[in-house]
Amino acid sequence: MMMRRFGSVLLSTFFCAGLVASGPAVGQAQGSLDLMPLPAHVAQGEGQFLIDGSLAVAVEGYPDPRVVEGRRRFLERLGSETGIPFVEDRSASKASFVIHTAGPSEAVQQLGEDESYHLAISATQVELSATNSLGILHGLQTFLQLVRITPQGFGVPVVTIDDQPRFPWRGLMIDVGRHFQPLAVIERNLDGMEAVKLNVFHWHLSDDQGFRVESRQFPLLQEKASGGRYYTQEQIHEVIDYARARGIRVVPEFDMPCHTTAWFAAYPQFASAPGPFKIETKWGVFDPALDPTREATFEFLDKLIGEMTALFPDAYFHIGGDECDGKEWDANPRIKAFMREHGMKDDAALQSYFTGCVQKLVVGHHKIPEGWDEVLQPDTPKNVVIQSWRGPKGLATAARQGNQVVLSNGYYIDLNKPASEHYLVDPLGGDGANLTAEQKARVLGGEATMWSEFVTPDNIDSRIWPRTAAIAERFWSAQDVRDVDSMYRRMAIVSLKLENYRLQHNSSTRMMLERMSGKADVKELEVLASAVQPPQGYARESLHEYNSGSPLNRMVDAVPPESETAWRFGQLASLIAAGKASPEQWKQAHDLLVVWRDNDAKLQPELGESDLTAELSGVSESLSQVASIGLQALDDLRNHRVPGADAREKNMQVLKAAAKPKAILVDKVASPVELLVNASAKQ
Amino acid sequence: MMMRRFGSVLLSTFFCAGLVASGPAVGQAQGSLDLMPLPAHVAQGEGQFLIDGSLAVAVEGYPDPRVVEGRRRFLERLGSETGIPFVEDRSASKASFVIHTAGPSEAVQQLGEDESYHLAISATQVELSATNSLGILHGLQTFLQLVRITPQGFGVPVVTIDDQPRFPWRGLMIDVGRHFQPLAVIERNLDGMEAVKLNVFHWHLSDDQGFRVESRQFPLLQEKASGGRYYTQEQIHEVIDYARARGIRVVPEFDMPCHTTAWFAAYPQFASAPGPFKIETKWGVFDPALDPTREATFEFLDKLIGEMTALFPDAYFHIGGDECDGKEWDANPRIKAFMREHGMKDDAALQSYFTGCVQKLVVGHHKIPEGWDEVLQPDTPKNVVIQSWRGPKGLATAARQGNQVVLSNGYYIDLNKPASEHYLVDPLGGDGANLTAEQKARVLGGEATMWSEFVTPDNIDSRIWPRTAAIAERFWSAQDVRDVDSMYRRMAIVSLKLENYRLQHNSSTRMMLERMSGKADVKELEVLASAVQPPQGYARESLHEYNSGSPLNRMVDAVPPESETAWRFGQLASLIAAGKASPEQWKQAHDLLVVWRDNDAKLQPELGESDLTAELSGVSESLSQVASIGLQALDDLRNHRVPGADAREKNMQVLKAAAKPKAILVDKVASPVELLVNASAKQ
Repeated sequence: MMMRRFGSVLLSTFFCAGLVASGPAVGQAQGSLDLMPLPAHVAQGEGQFLIDGSLAVAVEGYPDPRVVEGRRRFLERLGSETGIPFVEDRSASKASFVIHTAGPSEAVQQLGEDESYHLAISATQVELSATNSLGILHGLQTFLQLVRITPQGFGVPVVTIDDQPRFPWRGLMIDVGRHFQPLAVIERNLDGMEAVKLNVFHWHLSDDQGFRVESRQFPLLQEKASGGRYYTQEQIHEVIDYARARGIRVVPEFDMPCHTTAWFAAYPQFASAPGPFKIETKWGVFDPALDPTREATFEFLDKLIGEMTALFPDAYFHIGGDECDGKEWDANPRIKAFMREHGMKDDAALQSYFTGCVQKLVVGHHKIPEGWDEVLQPDTPKNVVIQSWRGPKGLATAARQGNQVVLSNGYYIDLNKPASEHYLVDPLGGDGANLTAEQKARVLGGEATMWSEFVTPDNIDSRIWPRTAAIAERFWSAQDVRDVDSMYRRMAIVSLKLENYRLQHNSSTRMMLERMSGKADVKELEVLASAVQPPQGYARESLHEYNSGSPLNRMVDAVPPESETAWRFGQLASLIAAGKASPEQWKQAHDLLVVWRDNDAKLQPELGESDLTAELSGVSESLSQVASIGLQALDDLRNHRVPGADAREKNMQVLKAAAKPKAILVDKVASPVELLVNASAKQ
Repeated sequence: MMMRRFGSVLLSTFFCAGLVASGPAVGQAQGSLDLMPLPAHVAQGEGQFLIDGSLAVAVEGYPDPRVVEGRRRFLERLGSETGIPFVEDRSASKASFVIHTAGPSEAVQQLGEDESYHLAISATQVELSATNSLGILHGLQTFLQLVRITPQGFGVPVVTIDDQPRFPWRGLMIDVGRHFQPLAVIERNLDGMEAVKLNVFHWHLSDDQGFRVESRQFPLLQEKASGGRYYTQEQIHEVIDYARARGIRVVPEFDMPCHTTAWFAAYPQFASAPGPFKIETKWGVFDPALDPTREATFEFLDKLIGEMTALFPDAYFHIGGDECDGKEWDANPRIKAFMREHGMKDDAALQSYFTGCVQKLVVGHHKIPEGWDEVLQPDTPKNVVIQSWRGPKGLATAARQGNQVVLSNGYYIDLNKPASEHYLVDPLGGDGANLTAEQKARVLGGEATMWSEFVTPDNIDSRIWPRTAAIAERFWSAQDVRDVDSMYRRMAIVSLKLENYRLQHNSSTRMMLERMSGKADVKELEVLASAVQPPQGYARESLHEYNSGSPLNRMVDAVPPESETAWRFGQLASLIAAGKASPEQWKQAHDLLVVWRDNDAKLQPELGESDLTAELSGVSESLSQVASIGLQALDDLRNHRVPGADAREKNMQVLKAAAKPKAILVDKVASPVELLVNASAKQ
């Protein structure tokens, strides 16, 4: 449904392909600013503020350490964006950039703190002011995004910006249960979050495949439930400090009563089945569940929640609650008896009872509980925040019931969907649009979710970025900011900035292709990579069997979820098919097809040299055939020649075959070529 | 002199250019192993040991924590080289990879500890044994270098290696005085050092432009002498631990009595002139020097050396001693009087007196002093280690005089010279070859020196790597290992591995080109970059004025010191000129020239859009002209047509003009093209 909507938006919009074809343009196109998220209010002026080594930044007003440290980081980043060394200790008297902070921010960052800022850039002076340090941090990021190289050197355009977010909860969840992610991965992604003004890092810290935090109360959790891959409490503190310095809250999640297999490898006594248990290595939904009928379970949880709520200062504490299949409960006579005694008619009622108890424990430790969709029952207390993931209706249901809600349905970035699809999902769109003002106020925002079945430190950045920048804009900017072409143009620019900030979403592809082939020159593999994508949704798991020990080192792991080149070719094909393409656009489409057609002959002889590239033989050959058909169609269109029905039928069969996944890869050229072939038949 | 020698070696050697043209080949070429440094003894077998997720590594023998941690890091790195997740906790009983450590290593790593190892790889089993953990660490790195992708998957060849280093002191010096380098830079370069078996990190911690260590005795050093850029003592400990885990000693250097301007910004009372002083921002040799005539100076130094020798556990302590111009001493009547009183005939004698006193302080703190060439005087105590830098004779002089010596002359990697030139310098070559066996035994090894006038965290890796891998081979492998073609072939392979270890010597170029242009597509800039290099030696400073605040963000900073493509073209041109090129090599040369010739037309229109690329207009145009001349010469040669004298004269003028630096860049194509033109004239 969403897919179709996106498709029609793309097809009906004229898109300036030439601009993207040559990469992000220098300077500002058509008067718009290359910012993501777009600010609330912008007044553009003439000229620019030039940035050179004489730049001095003064800090005035309330002396917040986060601002002082923010200035240091700002200058370091500005140095990295420009290659100009900046010195910190300039006196305010000669500063050309003045930061003014009106007052303090909360000791522990709170939901709904004022995040607004005012940024006024003239040709000679920059003024950044905000109520508190959060606004200052956002304003500094806006400034960094404005920096670009010009004939006069590095500069930012003259502009006045008044900005604040639409939603107070703008999150990214990273699942470190399925594939553990080292601290460096977490920290560079917090850098990325800061750059696009996300303010909640939801840390999914435990799952069937691992419990990832050191517990001093229950040390067997790290010893037996983590496979040696967990964060020490010292590291947790480090991440929390790192996040706070960037205006980001850290909300921990301990998923229960299900998704707890790993826990039982350490403490089987709290399980609903006799065991024995070991850390799960497969992907999927599993039966093990905490036993909600025993006092000991809640004593254990009270101590654990006590320890973890003390470790994580945020006001919110996520208790998971998703995907209970109830099988262990059903198979346990004692639990069945308990349910009968207490008049619980089904497993959902038992889970509701469990959730109620855990909610009380969380509240007892002075935290606000949060849980996935499933924890919402008619009697769920109003203080529980719901994270809606299962479908588009959950959010409205929760808001109507009086619960605050965070939307994740539509933002599952592990599913390899295009940025545009996520971008057009709005927390207050769909069913949310029909809420009353009071109900709408309960919609706190949203979260992109990086589930980690198929990500390693090598490629996780490429699954998160740059698409999460588009999602961040959805949470920050006005609801009517939804021009997909503008989004793609600006996302390409912010993507380049993020790579400069040492995220590896682009560079990882090349590294992985080098690893696959054992070669430094991977030009032909890159050409092939530009035409293919991983399958969307959960299709991958049906194509091959995976577990937590599976190598994730093949082409499907190396290529980004959305090929910029293939996307661009799709645009060109649409314009040509609609008779709206310029001669330059015809040429671009033709050149791309020639490269794809001719690549196979160069690549094929090398593929057999590596076990990891051998499987690409059919993919490469098929791409070449598809490109040949595309070139023929272009030729037919150019010469107003309608191809014979036989030839067309034959070509369609090739295209259909090409559209089927090979080596777990989807050919993204076949479908636009089909468009061209159909257009050539309809002349 | 060295340059000429290198030139003739290259020109007289047949080189298999095709191999490099397509990147490092998969598998082993011609039976040799793709290792750098090459091991002492190798016995190759048939077949390979396959690496998959079932690999288990057992640790036996002496339980050294460095081995246990080394295994953890080994598995992590192997995971990163293959994309296969490896689990640590396998029992030894089913291990296919057994590590056996015979005994302990020293609590603080000592010069001359046994570093040998025995690595036996069969098709089913790997055995790595060593006297102590140092050999184990080296053996693990050898194994990692052997890993390559094959049609059967990842594997290492069946081989038995017995290996140990030729020299016990194999170092890399990084100057953090002139440009401070963050911890991340230091640590990733320690990773690189470990990969090529370097074992001394010489940390040049202070210079005129900054004192970079927190002193608790003299806190003004970090407060006033560092510009806010220094390492805390906690960070120093972190680096020392990091290095020790990798079998690397950390030798700190505090350069005195000169190169101390920054010190006097904090403590002017110890200077030889009245001041006032501020941190130096220019590059060069400066007058400020410690006052060797005052008791207070040595009281200060004794406390400082006491603090720093306690901070750095290594047995050696480097006191610098280079480049005293004596001007402050000569201008100070009190110092002149002191010299007269004590019968010191010149500044060298005064410095010798100073060095003698400081040496005693260092020895008093139980350390062995080390100093640059200049500290060697006829009466220098025999316990002082000399680091020879000024010329090829210093090493032999020191060894004859009875001092141990480390060679750095010939390994100045800041001078942008080709790897081959450094590679052919041997600590026991040149004057060193004529030493007696006893004198030769005093030659401890050598150090590559990364002086930091022109490096930032952005490009420092590209100045160090991969050339330092070739230098590391010089220090480790047999003296007769000096085949330049083999070195370049293997260096390209190890370069790829180092990039996988997150060094940024290759990726930084692209990042910097993106930054220069503000564009994601930098294909044409990359083509231009492939043809140019920074000037060699100290030429850069005569072409433009620089200081510590100068932006280092231009093409000259982005390109590596040695262009692999231009080097390859040089090889092809030599073969063609000598009448020894194959048809394939003719084609490769032709294709490169076509790309260079045609690039200007595409690149030129964009250059003016950025201040940082505008200066490349002339460079690009000139390259196009040079390539055109090269294509004409190829055509003349192919058709046995001797060009007219006028045309040749005109072309030679163009080539001469092209050979002059433009935008501080040297065109590396002009000279090989001249070779072709000359060859065409001599048919």
